[in-house]
Amino acid sequence: MFDSVNVIGASGRAGSAISARLEERGVQLAAGEAELILLCVPDAAISTVAQGLEPGPWVAHVSGATSLAALDPHERRFSVHPLQTLVTWRGPEQLDGAYGAIVGETAAARERARWLASTLGLEPFELADELRTLYHAGAAIASNYLVTLHRVASSLFDDVGAPAEGLVPLMRRTIENGFELTGPIARGDSSTVEAHLAALRERRPELVPLYETLAEATAR
Amino acid sequence: MFDSVNVIGASGRAGSAISARLEERGVQLAAGEAELILLCVPDAAISTVAQGLEPGPWVAHVSGATSLAALDPHERRFSVHPLQTLVTWRGPEQLDGAYGAIVGETAAARERARWLASTLGLEPFELADELRTLYHAGAAIASNYLVTLHRVASSLFDDVGAPAEGLVPLMRRTIENGFELTGPIARGDSSTVEAHLAALRERRPELVPLYETLAEATAR
Repeated sequence: MFDSVNVIGASGRAGSAISARLEERGVQLAAGEAELILLCVPDAAISTVAQGLEPGPWVAHVSGATSLAALDPHERRFSVHPLQTLVTWRGPEQLDGAYGAIVGETAAARERARWLASTLGLEPFELADELRTLYHAGAAIASNYLVTLHRVASSLFDDVGAPAEGLVPLMRRTIENGFELTGPIARGDSSTVEAHLAALRERRPELVPLYETLAEATAR
Repeated sequence: MFDSVNVIGASGRAGSAISARLEERGVQLAAGEAELILLCVPDAAISTVAQGLEPGPWVAHVSGATSLAALDPHERRFSVHPLQTLVTWRGPEQLDGAYGAIVGETAAARERARWLASTLGLEPFELADELRTLYHAGAAIASNYLVTLHRVASSLFDDVGAPAEGLVPLMRRTIENGFELTGPIARGDSSTVEAHLAALRERRPELVPLYETLAEATAR
């Protein structure tokens, strides 16, 4: 669909994986003129970069939370957000098996977004532009706050001399078990929950709000 | 070390995996007299069951949060807690690769706890009885609240018509990446965090405290 793509921001987390994948798929990476200009720049820079581009080619971004309006004044535009945590020490293979949120205002735009997502190795799904912030909040909760849970649990393990490595098989299996809830809340064992809170109040009071908020959300 | 074990509560989540594993390892499962009586009963029942046992054999439990004092009046006692989320639809293989917290008041007790953990396929580590509640709170945060994050993120995805299946590769990779933080907080992108909060306030106000508490813990 696009034979040439100009990836702007090709050295970043998303840009490096995306440009490597496009190259693997035989898409020409053009530094200048191209059929598609793909912005892989920080969210806050999208609007400025878009405004600096000559109108003509299709213009797209790969941000989760940023509205298509940031691509003004371009009208032939769309976005593809890889629903994946991307790191610079992995390659394009990290896109495999991930989903990709595609946003477009016209059928032609959505068709191009779907092509790009598929070419990248993503499983595309359509998202409404006005709902993308809520979608992105969900993704951040799932990935970023999982990191936070691990940090908090690791710090408690450090406190008691337990090996934090032991958390990894536990968290992996929680996912493999289809997120089946076990433990005190699943058993209706409120005295263990109270004991956790009492121990945290005494030793790690700063974690009490986090524990309580999550306990409440779990019981809901 | 123990040729026969009486597993009490062998039909539960922990008891079924444990008794199947002991059998696999050639340990005799005895319904009555045995060298070790292993309580795989709910935390709240441990003390009552222990008090009903004739003194003589070693007595142990597999609870994470329950003190050894619950095994009174028995003095030859210990505990082994599999640091794993156990489900009834998996077998003893779910113990493989998991860690096991061992607690004992004497060298003889710890030696036996270590033997049991290893026989079960667990990687044993010693834990102090008085620190076990804090340890168990850490395990619950890592596993149970990971379930909660997934539920919350899934419900947001449902709200916007995004496929919740897409969260699974994201959460898996977050673990595989060694919990490297990506996303808005890692980028110092406070305007996206504010946009998430504004969207939640409008559409899912009940999730605001959870998001805020976790954002704060992440930034810490």
